[in-house]
Amino acid sequence: MPPQWAGLSPELLLSVDRDSEERLCAQLEGQLRDAIRTGRLRADERLPSSRALARELGLSRGLIQDCYAQLQSEGYLVTRVGSATRVATGAHIPKSPEAEPSPTRPHLTADFRHGVPDLASFPFTDWLWATREAARTMPTADLDYGDPRGSSALREVAAGYLRRVRAACAEPARTVICSGYAQGLGLALGALSRAGARVVAYEDPGGPAVARAAADAAGLTAVPVPVDEQGVDVRRLAATGADAVIVTPAHQWPTGVVMAPSRRLALIEWAMREDAYVIEDDYDAEFRYDREPVGTLQGLAADRVISIGTVSKSLAPALRIGWLLCPPALMAPVTEAKHASDRGSPTLDQLALARLIESGRYDRHLRRMRTTYASRRTALITALTENAPSVTLSGLAAGFHAVAHLAPGLDEETVITRARARGVGLYGMSACRASGAADPGQLVLGFGNVTVRGIGEGVAAVADLLEPSGA
Amino acid sequence: MPPQWAGLSPELLLSVDRDSEERLCAQLEGQLRDAIRTGRLRADERLPSSRALARELGLSRGLIQDCYAQLQSEGYLVTRVGSATRVATGAHIPKSPEAEPSPTRPHLTADFRHGVPDLASFPFTDWLWATREAARTMPTADLDYGDPRGSSALREVAAGYLRRVRAACAEPARTVICSGYAQGLGLALGALSRAGARVVAYEDPGGPAVARAAADAAGLTAVPVPVDEQGVDVRRLAATGADAVIVTPAHQWPTGVVMAPSRRLALIEWAMREDAYVIEDDYDAEFRYDREPVGTLQGLAADRVISIGTVSKSLAPALRIGWLLCPPALMAPVTEAKHASDRGSPTLDQLALARLIESGRYDRHLRRMRTTYASRRTALITALTENAPSVTLSGLAAGFHAVAHLAPGLDEETVITRARARGVGLYGMSACRASGAADPGQLVLGFGNVTVRGIGEGVAAVADLLEPSGA
Repeated sequence: MPPQWAGLSPELLLSVDRDSEERLCAQLEGQLRDAIRTGRLRADERLPSSRALARELGLSRGLIQDCYAQLQSEGYLVTRVGSATRVATGAHIPKSPEAEPSPTRPHLTADFRHGVPDLASFPFTDWLWATREAARTMPTADLDYGDPRGSSALREVAAGYLRRVRAACAEPARTVICSGYAQGLGLALGALSRAGARVVAYEDPGGPAVARAAADAAGLTAVPVPVDEQGVDVRRLAATGADAVIVTPAHQWPTGVVMAPSRRLALIEWAMREDAYVIEDDYDAEFRYDREPVGTLQGLAADRVISIGTVSKSLAPALRIGWLLCPPALMAPVTEAKHASDRGSPTLDQLALARLIESGRYDRHLRRMRTTYASRRTALITALTENAPSVTLSGLAAGFHAVAHLAPGLDEETVITRARARGVGLYGMSACRASGAADPGQLVLGFGNVTVRGIGEGVAAVADLLEPSGA
Repeated sequence: MPPQWAGLSPELLLSVDRDSEERLCAQLEGQLRDAIRTGRLRADERLPSSRALARELGLSRGLIQDCYAQLQSEGYLVTRVGSATRVATGAHIPKSPEAEPSPTRPHLTADFRHGVPDLASFPFTDWLWATREAARTMPTADLDYGDPRGSSALREVAAGYLRRVRAACAEPARTVICSGYAQGLGLALGALSRAGARVVAYEDPGGPAVARAAADAAGLTAVPVPVDEQGVDVRRLAATGADAVIVTPAHQWPTGVVMAPSRRLALIEWAMREDAYVIEDDYDAEFRYDREPVGTLQGLAADRVISIGTVSKSLAPALRIGWLLCPPALMAPVTEAKHASDRGSPTLDQLALARLIESGRYDRHLRRMRTTYASRRTALITALTENAPSVTLSGLAAGFHAVAHLAPGLDEETVITRARARGVGLYGMSACRASGAADPGQLVLGFGNVTVRGIGEGVAAVADLLEPSGA
């Protein structure tokens, strides 16, 4: 027994379990790797000869030799001719610091977080049916790397759907499948940046954090432009000198304003005049309650508008499927950006979505959800009217969120903090303002993923906080 | 009938089909939008009054009014008080130029394209089973936006798999799920760039186009470093002053060299000394024929090596699932980059892969494929030995491609072009060289997605081109 090994007998260090399914050689290798990584065997330390270790463990010498050879080829051990096998230097792994815990969402009685659809209504049966059908009929070649624009089947079906339901001027050859709004925006801004754009404007209030991060990643400067009760202020937009603007025409995020016809036309006129582009986030227009949804802006000016849509609100965010409708001039750079980013979205998922839409199951799901959201919307209006009459609501024409205007004197942050302590998740408008200002105090109430009962109980639990006397 | 409408009667322009499932109002809207987009109705053109059009079409006036109102709210029509409804200016869509055709691969009798596994062996039944199981057991909350690092279930299972099969030092908390090698490399280089890296080295021969494009996107300079029969030349690497290097230690792409133990240690020593990082593309090590696969380099130095793996070779590229094992210092920036890029990969697919691995079906598939590839490898060796004896093969220890060394005097490009004319897809080493040089003439023969019969027939069809006398 060599001295380096003293006090640490191989029996203690190594043990083999003859009943394990893992091969004996693999067991030994794993234990030796661990011993080296954790420092139990130190750099340059000498290992027993294969003959000696074989005898100690009652294994064949050939097995030990195979094991040493494997670890030698991986760089854990060093063998010199005529000398003992030793632990290589540089193979010691320092302990990792404690891992951060996974981000978890606190459990809340009622959570009015916005941007989340009713997850419990996800049509699992339809989705699995569509996946099976897609798998059954997909050509073998579709398992290869695909067209970075996306599967032609989905581009065909999605373009048809967007023409029919969103009055979009959609063609498969101008459609790129992406993984959702964030990626779609990134691809669009990347393409614009390469085409020479420098400044991108975004609506205020809106999603300043997302717009700024995406602009930053594309090397662009992001500037806010105010939204009034007609939509984005096009005169103020023109004054920024922006090369592009991100807008939510069908249902402004988060105010819920539907962009006025005159603004739609002024916006397109601006884009034509300035050789600029409009990025349309067509994010929840499927759900409109008082009338037919307003068609896309893209339908009015397909060569000036990039329209981005997803199934994150209509089905579930976890599917990660969306699309861009590209003006002719941007089709090639957007495709290239998608290829560079991830080589295209997963094909089977795309084919499943195509099946879901084609079969009419997608429309049926949307109709069902419209009823669900309509009753939640009514529940929210009723609950607030009855329990917190000083709150006024706006932005309820479409989608599944509303803006609650707090009475003067009520502090957004205080209301949110106190509600949280009672197990109710409320979210303020300040996060949507470019300035971060919390005045006037407003809440953005999502009702997509809260049940009618949850809405009633949630509002009742915090109603006193929403009244001037209660805060 | 107003004069603007003359010669173009509404009956000609518009028609409604009472038997169609589409609502009459939607039919009319669609036709008017199309007429405006295509220029059949010009800007400022006056429309008939709702009363007149209703009479012409035999529809109610209210329906026409609804239709006009919808198009007005979308910006196609303009209504002024006391005046007729007119077509808005700016709503005309110029015709798109002809769409480019989809990229299609030519049909070949035998295609020795590399980097593609046997697509016909994709385990559809197992994958659908795993998807169903994942759907059946996933918590509703998993349908929401998820952890950008990926589903904790898959990170757990993948880390365990990589520890067991690839001797990686893998922990779930240091694992990020991505969409494949391209995205993984992009995330890694983006994180390194933000940490101050400026130069990234890549193996030559290797994948110069991919390395350069990814480096460019991350704002880094890419420099080639030669590979010899021991792997990447670490002395030449040190001379470049690179902050990171991309390597393929288990089976060098495309030469097939297995990195020598001394080089593995020298590479890690370089990274430690220079505070640099090694990006390990662990791309086809699952398939090794002569012995157990060499474990990952990451297992030797988890704080200096970013290991990227995928299921593109083990299952299919179309699934778009891969993973990064990150050193502690890079975990946060890589996670952030993944969040910015696409908010995380699709959850159901991740859960399905976790199920597939957990259930042992993934291992079983790999075992089956190892047999398949081994027989194709034998078929290739046999076919070339018998039909084109002047060709020598190398790089056959693992994976499913080999390098064919052409006899002196044979021109790579000529051989490829002539083979193509005979329906055989061959691919040259020149595309893998940083210089693009075609000398010495070598072919990179992929045998993953060609049957034993296809290999025999393909080699026979081009054998004369591979002999000095035949070219």
